[in-house]
Amino acid sequence: MSGSGVSSVHPYIPRELHLPDYVPCFLSMSSIIAVYGVASLLVVSLVWISSGRSPKISKTDRMLMCWWAFTGLTHIILEGYFAFSPEFYKTKSPFYLAEVWKEYSKGDSRYAGRDSAVVTVEGITAVLEGPASLLAVYAITARKPYSYTLQLAVCLGQLYGDTVYFITSFLEGDNFATSPFYYWAYYVGANFSWVVIPTIIAIRSWKKISAAFEAQKKSKAH
Amino acid sequence: MSGSGVSSVHPYIPRELHLPDYVPCFLSMSSIIAVYGVASLLVVSLVWISSGRSPKISKTDRMLMCWWAFTGLTHIILEGYFAFSPEFYKTKSPFYLAEVWKEYSKGDSRYAGRDSAVVTVEGITAVLEGPASLLAVYAITARKPYSYTLQLAVCLGQLYGDTVYFITSFLEGDNFATSPFYYWAYYVGANFSWVVIPTIIAIRSWKKISAAFEAQKKSKAH
Repeated sequence: MSGSGVSSVHPYIPRELHLPDYVPCFLSMSSIIAVYGVASLLVVSLVWISSGRSPKISKTDRMLMCWWAFTGLTHIILEGYFAFSPEFYKTKSPFYLAEVWKEYSKGDSRYAGRDSAVVTVEGITAVLEGPASLLAVYAITARKPYSYTLQLAVCLGQLYGDTVYFITSFLEGDNFATSPFYYWAYYVGANFSWVVIPTIIAIRSWKKISAAFEAQKKSKAH
Repeated sequence: MSGSGVSSVHPYIPRELHLPDYVPCFLSMSSIIAVYGVASLLVVSLVWISSGRSPKISKTDRMLMCWWAFTGLTHIILEGYFAFSPEFYKTKSPFYLAEVWKEYSKGDSRYAGRDSAVVTVEGITAVLEGPASLLAVYAITARKPYSYTLQLAVCLGQLYGDTVYFITSFLEGDNFATSPFYYWAYYVGANFSWVVIPTIIAIRSWKKISAAFEAQKKSKAH
């Protein structure tokens, strides 16, 4: 392909990845992570404090509300921006959301390269799982009968997304990180919480639902 | 790429798809469908008749058992073969499972072309959803407290898989069918049941779980 020399100014692997008009990151790695960390801490604190006003909500449920608020906003804002911004890597000003994905692409260049499996998983996550996560915050407070079902459904979606994300990369050669540091920090590390926490919440929700059916069976037997 | 003239002996679209040592179908479309239809009818009849011996199982549950047995065996046998047989299109004898995918690739050449998103979705479907579907047959008969949760989980997995399947194709240009006939018959038609039926079962399972929590709430209130 002509112009392949021009595209190689980007920092990503594989070097052949063609990204015309790529503009490098403006913000440092630490500033990007600091903004995300502070914003997340703010969201979590707000949910934790406001949910603490109701004595009826258990500590576990308050922690779950914090997680669902944090993950829901991450899905909608960060992943939603990526899913619908195919040209984020061309952004000529230090726009935070574009910076996030320019930086994250060092751990997985399929983001800058617009791999269709990655875009699809991120689109589903942003459009369906994001709003559903925020609904889970409400469902827990309002003690809705669909609360555990909703939490289980979102967790299974997150885990399906993780599986597609990691297996497609493996099948395509697992060579999309700029260096082992970015591979472990971004590709593995940043996704780690979204494997472990949904697994734990899915198991908990599953058990709660089974317990409700057990109770129903017993009350019918009496 | 050299040898592209040789690869164009296959019937699939895009014509550039490189499939060295491709061997054409031995069986006709109607024989392939007839074998699948008769085998499925046999499975469904066996489950329908044997489940009818227990007067405790409702007709709806018996129909669900038929579906779960049919879809579970389809996932494990047909899709399981595809997921782990990257060279099925080279098969030199009329081996039924290879014939199925040689034929289906006329509706979606990403199967013969080993698209990583398709292989991943089929792998998840075969390895996780197949056995889970068969477990659902047992869970319904044995009235397990996780019966609806399991059915919901498998349905959501099937629907997530459908979404990845159709959206990745759309993002890659939706040009993988040999003709409009194969596009509508295989790519749309053959997948149609796995969109409609899981949606219906998911909604039903969701409602049943909510009802169990409502009942639990009421029995606690009394």
